[in-house]
Amino acid sequence: MIPNVLAERYATPPMQAIWSPEGKIVLEREFWIAVMKAQQSLGLDIPGDAIADYESAKENVDLDAIMERERVTRHDVKARIEEFNHLAGHEHIHKGLTSRDLTENVEQLQIFRALNETRFKSLATLSAFARRATQFRDLVISARTHNVAAQITTLGKRLAMNGEELLLASNQIDHLINSYPARGLKGAVGTRLDQLNLFNGDAEKAAALDNSVSEHLGIPATLNAVGQVYPRSLDLSVVSALCQISSGPSSFATTLRLMAGHELAGEGFAKGQTGSSAMPHKMNSRSCERINGFHTILQGHLNMASSLAGDQWNEGDVSCSVVRRVMLPDAFFAIDGSLETTLTVLEQMTVHKPVIERENQRYLPFLLSTTFLMAAVKNGVGRETAHAAVKEHALATLDDLRSGAVAENDLLRRLANDERLGLDLSSLENLFESGKSQTAAAHSQVDHFSAQVEQLVKDTAPNAADYRPGNIL
Amino acid sequence: MIPNVLAERYATPPMQAIWSPEGKIVLEREFWIAVMKAQQSLGLDIPGDAIADYESAKENVDLDAIMERERVTRHDVKARIEEFNHLAGHEHIHKGLTSRDLTENVEQLQIFRALNETRFKSLATLSAFARRATQFRDLVISARTHNVAAQITTLGKRLAMNGEELLLASNQIDHLINSYPARGLKGAVGTRLDQLNLFNGDAEKAAALDNSVSEHLGIPATLNAVGQVYPRSLDLSVVSALCQISSGPSSFATTLRLMAGHELAGEGFAKGQTGSSAMPHKMNSRSCERINGFHTILQGHLNMASSLAGDQWNEGDVSCSVVRRVMLPDAFFAIDGSLETTLTVLEQMTVHKPVIERENQRYLPFLLSTTFLMAAVKNGVGRETAHAAVKEHALATLDDLRSGAVAENDLLRRLANDERLGLDLSSLENLFESGKSQTAAAHSQVDHFSAQVEQLVKDTAPNAADYRPGNIL
Amino acid sequence: MIPNVLAERYATPPMQAIWSPEGKIVLEREFWIAVMKAQQSLGLDIPGDAIADYESAKENVDLDAIMERERVTRHDVKARIEEFNHLAGHEHIHKGLTSRDLTENVEQLQIFRALNETRFKSLATLSAFARRATQFRDLVISARTHNVAAQITTLGKRLAMNGEELLLASNQIDHLINSYPARGLKGAVGTRLDQLNLFNGDAEKAAALDNSVSEHLGIPATLNAVGQVYPRSLDLSVVSALCQISSGPSSFATTLRLMAGHELAGEGFAKGQTGSSAMPHKMNSRSCERINGFHTILQGHLNMASSLAGDQWNEGDVSCSVVRRVMLPDAFFAIDGSLETTLTVLEQMTVHKPVIERENQRYLPFLLSTTFLMAAVKNGVGRETAHAAVKEHALATLDDLRSGAVAENDLLRRLANDERLGLDLSSLENLFESGKSQTAAAHSQVDHFSAQVEQLVKDTAPNAADYRPGNIL
Amino acid sequence: MIPNVLAERYATPPMQAIWSPEGKIVLEREFWIAVMKAQQSLGLDIPGDAIADYESAKENVDLDAIMERERVTRHDVKARIEEFNHLAGHEHIHKGLTSRDLTENVEQLQIFRALNETRFKSLATLSAFARRATQFRDLVISARTHNVAAQITTLGKRLAMNGEELLLASNQIDHLINSYPARGLKGAVGTRLDQLNLFNGDAEKAAALDNSVSEHLGIPATLNAVGQVYPRSLDLSVVSALCQISSGPSSFATTLRLMAGHELAGEGFAKGQTGSSAMPHKMNSRSCERINGFHTILQGHLNMASSLAGDQWNEGDVSCSVVRRVMLPDAFFAIDGSLETTLTVLEQMTVHKPVIERENQRYLPFLLSTTFLMAAVKNGVGRETAHAAVKEHALATLDDLRSGAVAENDLLRRLANDERLGLDLSSLENLFESGKSQTAAAHSQVDHFSAQVEQLVKDTAPNAADYRPGNIL
Repeated sequence: MIPNVLAERYATPPMQAIWSPEGKIVLEREFWIAVMKAQQSLGLDIPGDAIADYESAKENVDLDAIMERERVTRHDVKARIEEFNHLAGHEHIHKGLTSRDLTENVEQLQIFRALNETRFKSLATLSAFARRATQFRDLVISARTHNVAAQITTLGKRLAMNGEELLLASNQIDHLINSYPARGLKGAVGTRLDQLNLFNGDAEKAAALDNSVSEHLGIPATLNAVGQVYPRSLDLSVVSALCQISSGPSSFATTLRLMAGHELAGEGFAKGQTGSSAMPHKMNSRSCERINGFHTILQGHLNMASSLAGDQWNEGDVSCSVVRRVMLPDAFFAIDGSLETTLTVLEQMTVHKPVIERENQRYLPFLLSTTFLMAAVKNGVGRETAHAAVKEHALATLDDLRSGAVAENDLLRRLANDERLGLDLSSLENLFESGKSQTAAAHSQVDHFSAQVEQLVKDTAPNAADYRPGNIL
Repeated sequence: MIPNVLAERYATPPMQAIWSPEGKIVLEREFWIAVMKAQQSLGLDIPGDAIADYESAKENVDLDAIMERERVTRHDVKARIEEFNHLAGHEHIHKGLTSRDLTENVEQLQIFRALNETRFKSLATLSAFARRATQFRDLVISARTHNVAAQITTLGKRLAMNGEELLLASNQIDHLINSYPARGLKGAVGTRLDQLNLFNGDAEKAAALDNSVSEHLGIPATLNAVGQVYPRSLDLSVVSALCQISSGPSSFATTLRLMAGHELAGEGFAKGQTGSSAMPHKMNSRSCERINGFHTILQGHLNMASSLAGDQWNEGDVSCSVVRRVMLPDAFFAIDGSLETTLTVLEQMTVHKPVIERENQRYLPFLLSTTFLMAAVKNGVGRETAHAAVKEHALATLDDLRSGAVAENDLLRRLANDERLGLDLSSLENLFESGKSQTAAAHSQVDHFSAQVEQLVKDTAPNAADYRPGNIL
Repeated sequence: MIPNVLAERYATPPMQAIWSPEGKIVLEREFWIAVMKAQQSLGLDIPGDAIADYESAKENVDLDAIMERERVTRHDVKARIEEFNHLAGHEHIHKGLTSRDLTENVEQLQIFRALNETRFKSLATLSAFARRATQFRDLVISARTHNVAAQITTLGKRLAMNGEELLLASNQIDHLINSYPARGLKGAVGTRLDQLNLFNGDAEKAAALDNSVSEHLGIPATLNAVGQVYPRSLDLSVVSALCQISSGPSSFATTLRLMAGHELAGEGFAKGQTGSSAMPHKMNSRSCERINGFHTILQGHLNMASSLAGDQWNEGDVSCSVVRRVMLPDAFFAIDGSLETTLTVLEQMTVHKPVIERENQRYLPFLLSTTFLMAAVKNGVGRETAHAAVKEHALATLDDLRSGAVAENDLLRRLANDERLGLDLSSLENLFESGKSQTAAAHSQVDHFSAQVEQLVKDTAPNAADYRPGNIL
Repeated sequence: MIPNVLAERYATPPMQAIWSPEGKIVLEREFWIAVMKAQQSLGLDIPGDAIADYESAKENVDLDAIMERERVTRHDVKARIEEFNHLAGHEHIHKGLTSRDLTENVEQLQIFRALNETRFKSLATLSAFARRATQFRDLVISARTHNVAAQITTLGKRLAMNGEELLLASNQIDHLINSYPARGLKGAVGTRLDQLNLFNGDAEKAAALDNSVSEHLGIPATLNAVGQVYPRSLDLSVVSALCQISSGPSSFATTLRLMAGHELAGEGFAKGQTGSSAMPHKMNSRSCERINGFHTILQGHLNMASSLAGDQWNEGDVSCSVVRRVMLPDAFFAIDGSLETTLTVLEQMTVHKPVIERENQRYLPFLLSTTFLMAAVKNGVGRETAHAAVKEHALATLDDLRSGAVAENDLLRRLANDERLGLDLSSLENLFESGKSQTAAAHSQVDHFSAQVEQLVKDTAPNAADYRPGNIL
């Protein structure tokens, strides 16, 4: 059998369980049982023994037997009804239901549980970002814009920055979970006619059955005026949320790949892992690259979701069916793999402080050149004069560094030697010393981020802080 | 000059105003003035006269003059600074700011205002859906799944169904507006160093300036640990919300195109509009097709947004710049055009009741066949026997209808003539008569939808109910 | 294990074989053996016995054993090397190769074979289109634009139209197959250094080895200045070609869904297949819907491919790895499923001629109204007078048809009764009779299409005309 | 008026001319004139004077007047017919044509010309790649995989690698241009009925008119069995080709951004351009970032194109209309901007050889470690012993370099001091000296690439080699 690569190589057991064929069969059977119980309590003649027999048969899942039935009927739901009836020895399930009453709700239940699993892992990842941000809260690094050193920041701040993007997405997924509406039992075209017929026209009972189903599912809201299917833009909002979740980790992974290229940091190795056998110095950012790859996959799924949305014919056709069979599980496997990998990288990442320090040495005089300029101005030098002098020396220093004419950034010495500026070396060095640790709001931003995460995790999923990733491939 | 097609042909003046080059210049100037005022009140030496001079110059926008400056400096922000200073006769703007302190916040302001405009128009469209749904609350139509008649519903319910999809998206955009965070004044790499330097290291003043800016913008939240730019997954959440907004209208448009093919309904014509000159009977669903087209355009923009998200290098590169210049205004122009067109179609649509009635006549006996089956069973006929008989006659009737052997659906007569079923024609006709108006929960779903919309509009934008679309091309 | 849905439910055995984990292992082993043979003939000391031992072990694929090795080494290629060496009892494979020398070429071989398989099935589908187009070459139907009847055409022409779109795509895939370039043996960064070292600096031998590999692969061209990987825009051209292939079938499926809604035609049923159990008249276009779904899936894969293209860092990073593991096989499974389903629909589709005839009756008088107009003009009536009269009657007839005031289109009678036009009923009926079979170039377009297909199939894959689809789910 | 940003900021005059509203009007008028001439020569009564009057009016384009007409008729083609007739003082155009006979062919002509313009600029860009590759043919750099130094290559080879990706895409566009089929004059639903009626049923004349049109367009092929519109998968193949064209430049731009981060190279500055005013050392890769941005925009357009393909209803609806109005010009503006920017970067790029040299110094001993290993083995040391020793020293050296314990890579000295290896320093240095210029096939790959480009340019567009970009913003 050809396996689902995302599931088998990258997703974790809880996510696999939600989407496995066996798992889905059990969810459906639980759904049927819940419906039967509600129907019984609403007066339908369904023997308690029968329900008990279904209950005891529900974990007995034989996919081959079901497929054999499907090859005859060419109707997947019918095949699964027959199998369950056969196992239980009764014919009481699926009364007053159409196929979509079953499949829409059960698939939404899978989505809802997978969203919750994703939220949990997002919070675990946020905790890991917060831990690392706090650890490196004060480690000064050269911040880069346009991939060129621009000002100083701290490594903790950089991690908090990527973490904050995940935090925004996590709030998005919270909102989605809290407002997610199930289709409910609405019959073949959404008017609840089939349920009404079941209860001889008693609209209250039909509505009560619909409510019972919602309670069973545990999904917070229920749709009202649906057709055969729930609106597919709901799937779009789900896949979009997953794509947003993967964005912070993906930017983090990109940045760590860049840092590894400068030897400033690396994603680390698992115990026992060897890198390239031919080149012992080579530690590849394969996990970070993979995180970027998951984001690309999710982009593709988002494309599928946006194509399904807005394309409903009348009360619903199922041109979405094959797409959703692929897109929904795969998108959740991808985000699960992405977060698991991110957790691993956050746990194993290595930081090479001496290299960071050397980079700072090289760039700091440039990054502080406006400070020197202002000091000269305060001493009474004209602004234009000072600016021209500083710029001249900065460019010359850069050229000499590149050409190798100097080995270290000696901008301070050059400025001290320029009479136009009226600044001696020791005062420049004082400015430099105080400036090089001037990380402005970086540390307070880290603290604020960590406090936000801590509170959120405490409020919504205390266990998430202790979650640690399994071994990844 | 080559015009922006989406803006010029389809968007409305309020949306054009938000994104026009002139409009953006004015927003920037208002931003600079707000910053100056805040800086002044925090003790910076900025003369009140200067601020007044900037105020009086702010509406004086000369795009050609600015472009001339840009061709020299090759720096768009610098060109705009120079022009504004030149107009005001001072050099007090942009103190302690980097380019992105200006552009990120002003672009977010454009987004925020455009989101609000879109929300308003969504509510107007919801009102129109609710009005039409209420009008056709009880008009029985043949609901279709797989594009084949399946059960009866009402036209009002069908409209409420498309409207409910828009309502879900509208709630999504509400959440986005209520939680949308601005980047704020954070300096070149996000640590607020530039602002700190401006206030000689006074972190409280730097923070106060940041807060003042947020107040000026009127955006509900502010980011904490950003870099040079705000996280691009925020743009993804915006464009995704627009794509969700367009989904309900797009499904509605698709369905109306289908209905027009059956002559059940049409999108109507504007006064004076002629259709195809050669074929006088031909009224093309060009507006509905256009609504579908806007959805496709938004899918493309969503693709761009998802490609930008998760691709940040370090504290930020601007490989997103050219993309956002295109994607952001165009996505809002597209959704504006989509909703304006949808409003027009909802206003002008025509419904051909006799054709609907004839379609019902053709299909109703089939749609009620299970009712006849149950009646036979209640009379004591075995279920299998009854099912076989009904199926046999239904298929034969369908064949005869298609072949023209019969002109009208005569299933009832056939069933009455079949002794196996024990049902006479008058009892079948009674079942038929009561069944053909059995729209189950359709009307209550319409009422529920309309009440939801009415409440929402009342609470958040009472004027929206009275909004009427302008003339579209 | 969670299966790959596209592979297991929709793809056919030949396509599964190309992409199965076992199949890929065998391809790799064949590649290693080919490399060894070439190395041996170029003078490297590789015993013939060893090669023979590898040969006899190559089909012995134990995925579990390989995965066990991978969990230790965390290096998938290394695990597969070790396993094959273990099975053969030698260590002669992979000499002078880096991982990508193996994987790039073998994956390209999979792509190349899958492209050929797709071409074959495209030709089979083209043959089926041509057969059906020829069968219905002269069956007059009401052509629709904007989903409204516009002029007459023939069903054969409509099928040829969809077929021609596939023909264009098929020519595209031909070009791709004929110019597809393999990466070849180029070493770790593309300079062939590793091969050069293997042959002690003998560049000719290194080049000869590269050539031998190309010959083994059977791929028509070889890249020159590659890096670690072949350019990913090559994958884009592949997935784009598949998406183009699916376009004609997808438009055909959409149109058949529309026709089914009018009962003009249907996709037919497999022997023994039952439709909806509750509604015996209901034959759902589930296969056509699925064809549309496959197109949506391919759009998502195209998105992934376009994201990978243009994103190469230096000589190559592998952020594409996880994406290509998913995208490449799945895109080929999807197109395989799409074409297999299209073949099935083309084989089973039913056409309801009496319904088509009735539709023509309803619309033909409208479609021919310009003919009547011209006849009046030829009789000396003023053009404006004639146009006004015809338009007036056409619109009134349409209204009366919709309102039920008339049951049949009686436009001819109305025109005959209008003295302004000077046309009697019999001459109008003559015009109508000759006009209703005036299908212009439709039949010759069908003939031209069929001849093109016949020639192409004959020239490139004679067996394709006889290919018949397997049973689909 | 809101301008089209892509057109106004980035595209060049020849591309603007193809897609400008005025330009399109002229193309349409030329098309009408060509049709009239053909109709005249086929015997239709069209006075030569009238044609002359149209000819002399054709450049007189008043967009406002046309828009005024459209606001009345709500039919864009009709408005343009009326205006042209008004200007010429005749009513002879558009005889026997439907709107799509005009618009499809003229839009295809725009596409065809824009493809040719893109091919020309691709060849110019290829020439620039070849010039630079040749210039840096032998400049040794550290090739990177996974963003980590892996082996040596040359800068020329790296440029040839990016260039070769463009070359592949250029061949693709060649094939597209050479096989591009126009829709031709096929009437309202594609059967050529309107043309047949024009010639009183003379099919040969109708076909001759269709052929004349093709000749006028200069498009190499003509479609046969089309409907109202040409298949939209043809647009997909066009936009996909553009996306492939942008891939090589985009990978090049990404790599140059990476190199700039290491100060190895930069995109250079235009004369007079200043970078960041605050930070004189900062030269941002804004043009390279923009090239990446254009690729993202094209991805979005590709998404739109793939959504239109495979979605044709019957003989064609125009839900594609608004999408194509945006997508087609914008995609060509984007590729034009991308290539123009790439040409600029290739012209202005700076290479910092001393920095490259220092990077090589740092990494070369690692990159050559397998060479040292083999030397030891040749001297009789056991392979495992040698490997362990080399690996131990390599890792220690890397650690010491990072910690600053050593300033230069002293791996050779360490290996010389290890008695296990039996290699003295001078022999290691000899190996190092010969290895450091061992660029294997790099130079011959550059030569091969340059020769291919030279031949191609010479054969197809000799002027392209001399094309130089204009000033970009």
